[in-house]
Amino acid sequence: MTDHAERTLPKLNVNGQRLWQSLMDLAQIGATPAGGNCRVALTAADGQGRDLVVGWLKQAGLTVTVDQVGNIFGRRDGQENGRPPVMTGSHIDTQPTGGKFDGCFGVMAGLEVIRTLNEANIVTRAPLELAIWTNEEGARFLPIMMGSGVFTGRHTLEEALEARDSAGLRVRDELAAIGYAGTKPVGFPVDAYFEAHIEQGPILEAEDKVIGAVGGSLGMRWFQVVVTGMEMHAGPTPMSVRKDALLAASELVQSVIRIGRENGPHGRGTVGVLNVHPGSRNVVPGRVDFTVDLRHMETTVLDAMEERLHKVFGQIAREHGVAVEVMRVQDNPPTPFKAELVQLVRDSAARRGLAQMDIVTGAGHDAVYMAMKHPAAMIFVPCKDGVSHNEIEDARPEHLEAGCNVLLDAMIARAGIAA
Amino acid sequence: MTDHAERTLPKLNVNGQRLWQSLMDLAQIGATPAGGNCRVALTAADGQGRDLVVGWLKQAGLTVTVDQVGNIFGRRDGQENGRPPVMTGSHIDTQPTGGKFDGCFGVMAGLEVIRTLNEANIVTRAPLELAIWTNEEGARFLPIMMGSGVFTGRHTLEEALEARDSAGLRVRDELAAIGYAGTKPVGFPVDAYFEAHIEQGPILEAEDKVIGAVGGSLGMRWFQVVVTGMEMHAGPTPMSVRKDALLAASELVQSVIRIGRENGPHGRGTVGVLNVHPGSRNVVPGRVDFTVDLRHMETTVLDAMEERLHKVFGQIAREHGVAVEVMRVQDNPPTPFKAELVQLVRDSAARRGLAQMDIVTGAGHDAVYMAMKHPAAMIFVPCKDGVSHNEIEDARPEHLEAGCNVLLDAMIARAGIAA
Repeated sequence: MTDHAERTLPKLNVNGQRLWQSLMDLAQIGATPAGGNCRVALTAADGQGRDLVVGWLKQAGLTVTVDQVGNIFGRRDGQENGRPPVMTGSHIDTQPTGGKFDGCFGVMAGLEVIRTLNEANIVTRAPLELAIWTNEEGARFLPIMMGSGVFTGRHTLEEALEARDSAGLRVRDELAAIGYAGTKPVGFPVDAYFEAHIEQGPILEAEDKVIGAVGGSLGMRWFQVVVTGMEMHAGPTPMSVRKDALLAASELVQSVIRIGRENGPHGRGTVGVLNVHPGSRNVVPGRVDFTVDLRHMETTVLDAMEERLHKVFGQIAREHGVAVEVMRVQDNPPTPFKAELVQLVRDSAARRGLAQMDIVTGAGHDAVYMAMKHPAAMIFVPCKDGVSHNEIEDARPEHLEAGCNVLLDAMIARAGIAA
Repeated sequence: MTDHAERTLPKLNVNGQRLWQSLMDLAQIGATPAGGNCRVALTAADGQGRDLVVGWLKQAGLTVTVDQVGNIFGRRDGQENGRPPVMTGSHIDTQPTGGKFDGCFGVMAGLEVIRTLNEANIVTRAPLELAIWTNEEGARFLPIMMGSGVFTGRHTLEEALEARDSAGLRVRDELAAIGYAGTKPVGFPVDAYFEAHIEQGPILEAEDKVIGAVGGSLGMRWFQVVVTGMEMHAGPTPMSVRKDALLAASELVQSVIRIGRENGPHGRGTVGVLNVHPGSRNVVPGRVDFTVDLRHMETTVLDAMEERLHKVFGQIAREHGVAVEVMRVQDNPPTPFKAELVQLVRDSAARRGLAQMDIVTGAGHDAVYMAMKHPAAMIFVPCKDGVSHNEIEDARPEHLEAGCNVLLDAMIARAGIAA
């Protein structure tokens, strides 16, 4: 199918100006003074955003359905409607101080692909489907990536609908309040899922690339560490007899980062939380607890990183005469994307002469959940300074247009053109 | 005077058993289930403790007065009552979960000296005075070391009396409530001030010494440090482009401790508080703030330590591409004790064949304030595992007796024996 599609691929281009305008129009809803967006999941603003986009979907001739967790689907018939659809999508909910592109780009890019096909009167063989997933950000309701999580069976529908925000309001009720408590059962077969997204990292910009062909999602392991030394008065206690938990922890932190560095380019080692006890200016810390976040694209390397962590932590504990307890609290395996879909992304970028590179995603995306059940791939475009989840999040129109063209090509290549 | 006194020093010994019993009797008031004491300043328990001890002072024939900040003085006339007194003392208020010895030992040792002189019918040339200072611990009311602070002019009487606890209660009213709002003006000439105290550190125990001749109090400088890097997602951000504020801070922490170590044995370098921002498991820390506590016995060395701190911090900031701001927030100069009084302590320990060493105090004591205005010295005895400010605080009766004997000798040597 792929070979055939490539041979017959028409010379089509999306309308970059229209794509940009749609993004800017959507960004009017929940606009923040600092130029960002606040459309937190299942708030009135999210409802208004959904209404606006659903209107556009209908104008583009799509058949709109809403499932029981509030995921919105816009279907464009193909020639062979019994086949599972080629899907694209993302989310339009934002962080409380979010930007205009995270998620929205993927949805608007999918819509622009549909509009472009409509203008060119092209019918695909497989049907196409545009998905808007509920509550990707998890800023108000957990679990995060709720809609795609239920769609792919990572979470139950009941678990999602019963989730409550900090005010005690339930997803079930808030979905109804904004008119998106759908009736369609959650989940159906999907032939392929493509998601276009800003990178949310600095790599493409630093490497001067326009397209990132995302090979998969980094595996991630989280640890909780407790260092126990001895609490002592900072004045009367000579340096030589101290068992300073923070001094030991400072070496442990450095070793975590070293492990990330030694396993580049996909290795990550981060200590994001660190608490010092008792936390008094003139008391030598008796206890420190901190988190460790290790990531890599390959399970075998993650195993080696974890083994190294335990070994180095043991050495540091002995040298400092402190106790170091390490507990693994989370283990998300690496999620490779479907090779043949990633190749479609690379091929399109190559044909269009776009500067591209292979990349991985370190952040979570709906596509990562989709990849656990369906063939999936992602297309990254640069974002300014790698900044996301921030009102100053920014991306260049020509990069968004390029990413959208690659999405168009990949979807046509996968779905095929009707005879 | 000293030479004369030494020549005529009688062979006297305190009653160690009586000293121990007085400590245990006092410890009944505000006793905690874990074996400690809770007699927080100006509570009912502090009042009961004061009443008990004042009774003992009167039984010992002392003339008791109370000054306007609640300091209690017990005077024993000498042959030459126009001379300023040779004073000893400490405090009987405790931490909320304090021990039986911190402060109380100094007061009970002073009382035991008086009792011993009474039994031996010895009259000193200079009068003797036993002081019980108000609110040394500062657990309920600030400033800490309140009574001796006002006595020596470090704080005004008004400032002390207007201080409020967390419930809004004033020192002025709480002194009246327990019956210790005295009328005597605060402060009078003192010939010499000796204070016996448990070490509150591990040195004497580790060195197997019974007596520490305290040469003075370490100078202390406090700094507030802010490290600013760049907050980034732990997943999408490769190690090579990070500006991890915690990684830089880990090196800064190590350099503080190295500065303390390089200036042993009296050098101290401590980071007791460290906060990581934003403090999220999967976010590279963008900002870290922490405290620095540097101590040494000599101002010139403290100057050099501070200079080194700024230099090393600058280097680390440049290497990591982060900003490091350092602000000095406190500067307490070293307080040397009076050499001739320290020598009296050494001489007594030597004559009695007690294992002794020179030591400094890193913790604050009433004697440190006294030393800023009057000749002063301290006598340290070991405490178990160097643990203080804790219900498990412990000391050995024979060590307390030895310290009390040294106090006796030093006071007699200073005051002289009546002809």
